Amino acid sequence: MPDSPIGIFDSGVGGLTVLKALRELLPGENLIYFGDTARVPYGTKSHRTIIRYSLQNTKLLHRFRVKMVVVACNTSSAHALEILKEEFPFPVVGVVEPGAREAVRTSKSGKIGVIGTEATVKSGAYRKAIVSLDPFCQVYQKACPLFVPLIEEGWLNDEITRKVAERYLGELLEKGIDTLVLGCTHYPLIKNVLSQVCRGVKLVDSANAVAKEVERLLPARNRSRRGSVRILVSDKTERFERIANMIMEEEIEIEEVEIDKE
Amino acid sequence: MPDSPIGIFDSGVGGLTVLKALRELLPGENLIYFGDTARVPYGTKSHRTIIRYSLQNTKLLHRFRVKMVVVACNTSSAHALEILKEEFPFPVVGVVEPGAREAVRTSKSGKIGVIGTEATVKSGAYRKAIVSLDPFCQVYQKACPLFVPLIEEGWLNDEITRKVAERYLGELLEKGIDTLVLGCTHYPLIKNVLSQVCRGVKLVDSANAVAKEVERLLPARNRSRRGSVRILVSDKTERFERIANMIMEEEIEIEEVEIDKE
Repeated sequence: MPDSPIGIFDSGVGGLTVLKALRELLPGENLIYFGDTARVPYGTKSHRTIIRYSLQNTKLLHRFRVKMVVVACNTSSAHALEILKEEFPFPVVGVVEPGAREAVRTSKSGKIGVIGTEATVKSGAYRKAIVSLDPFCQVYQKACPLFVPLIEEGWLNDEITRKVAERYLGELLEKGIDTLVLGCTHYPLIKNVLSQVCRGVKLVDSANAVAKEVERLLPARNRSRRGSVRILVSDKTERFERIANMIMEEEIEIEEVEIDKE
Repeated sequence: MPDSPIGIFDSGVGGLTVLKALRELLPGENLIYFGDTARVPYGTKSHRTIIRYSLQNTKLLHRFRVKMVVVACNTSSAHALEILKEEFPFPVVGVVEPGAREAVRTSKSGKIGVIGTEATVKSGAYRKAIVSLDPFCQVYQKACPLFVPLIEEGWLNDEITRKVAERYLGELLEKGIDTLVLGCTHYPLIKNVLSQVCRGVKLVDSANAVAKEVERLLPARNRSRRGSVRILVSDKTERFERIANMIMEEEIEIEEVEIDKE
């Protein structure tokens, strides 16, 4: 059981920031990642479709006898987490709850901004999670659908990305937020630009927050050896490999699997 | 048979520019459109996956007894057209061939630029089609993966879109192109910005080119009445409806269908 892997899934490549955070915090664990690259992105899809895809992805990881699943996709976490928890016999951890907890711990003014995909923002999941932890917090949300394609284009420290960030974040800054939750696993890759645009605002990185949550939940920890890492995708492309190398900073073979008939 | 609909498919919403061009040129025809919004975009996916999805989409349209299928997705046209032509008993028309023909007719210098998604550019389909029509043409290609999300964000006449266009198109303009093929059905929506950035360069809109090709192929034309239009999608979202209204400029009910098990 301690040797069973931890499963992680995301709609694509962004969840690798969570894989990386887990690898750094829990180097002895075996990790298996699934990126649903044949159907990415989830952020513009409907509630029902996001649930269907999330169930299929978790079933796939179940076949690898995982002891826990981390839903490293904010969109899936926001829409499907409760259903996944009911359907499967292992713990399922999302990114929303740990991110919300960290935000409430960090904020002094109680004014918290949340940025994410259209579907994440529309679900209101971060707002609900934050307000249930501290009903006096005020939550301001903004969907930023261009950030993922800008990041996947590799325009990380870039003038255009900064201009897009200024436009998206202007209204949140006007509200006087002191904390900003990066509610999409891609966003830590443009932390530099976001810090420049949001001077004085603390950024909450959900990848780190969820890694700490997993550490807290694990009964046994193996620190004596280096765990294995596998990365599976539903569609293997050069694009994924390029971005995966950029995030992971180590070379890991990428394997393609069938997901349609799950 | 003349009453049988013409089927059109695209990975998402962009192909509606083709639907609109067909509706304008052939108002008497019944048209049925399928947008694979549950799996959009195709432009970053692999050759094999694009073929699989294109076959499933055409099968779906076949069920509606279409007399012809227009592949309104440049990515699918570039990768799957030949296979679709072999597999189905009706004519299958892609956007690449008509766009290439129009470009060759338009260009005086023989220096032609092509912009599209990563997968379209990588396939080299436009280059092949143009050079087979006129081996003296020189073709310069550039993938522009940010255009689709910018358009879907509604930033059509926009400073940021212009800056992105300047960066993408700079190298093509340096080559001295006199013609630019908009190798993605979304791109006609930012024609204004593209004309500003490419002064003196003729833009070839594949939506118009393919509509003319369909007109040429049709044996019987019904001009006496107004044909019907149906729009099907694999995932119905507000986002799709918003952009569909922007493109079509008329209200059409959008119906959701299952595609996974085709």
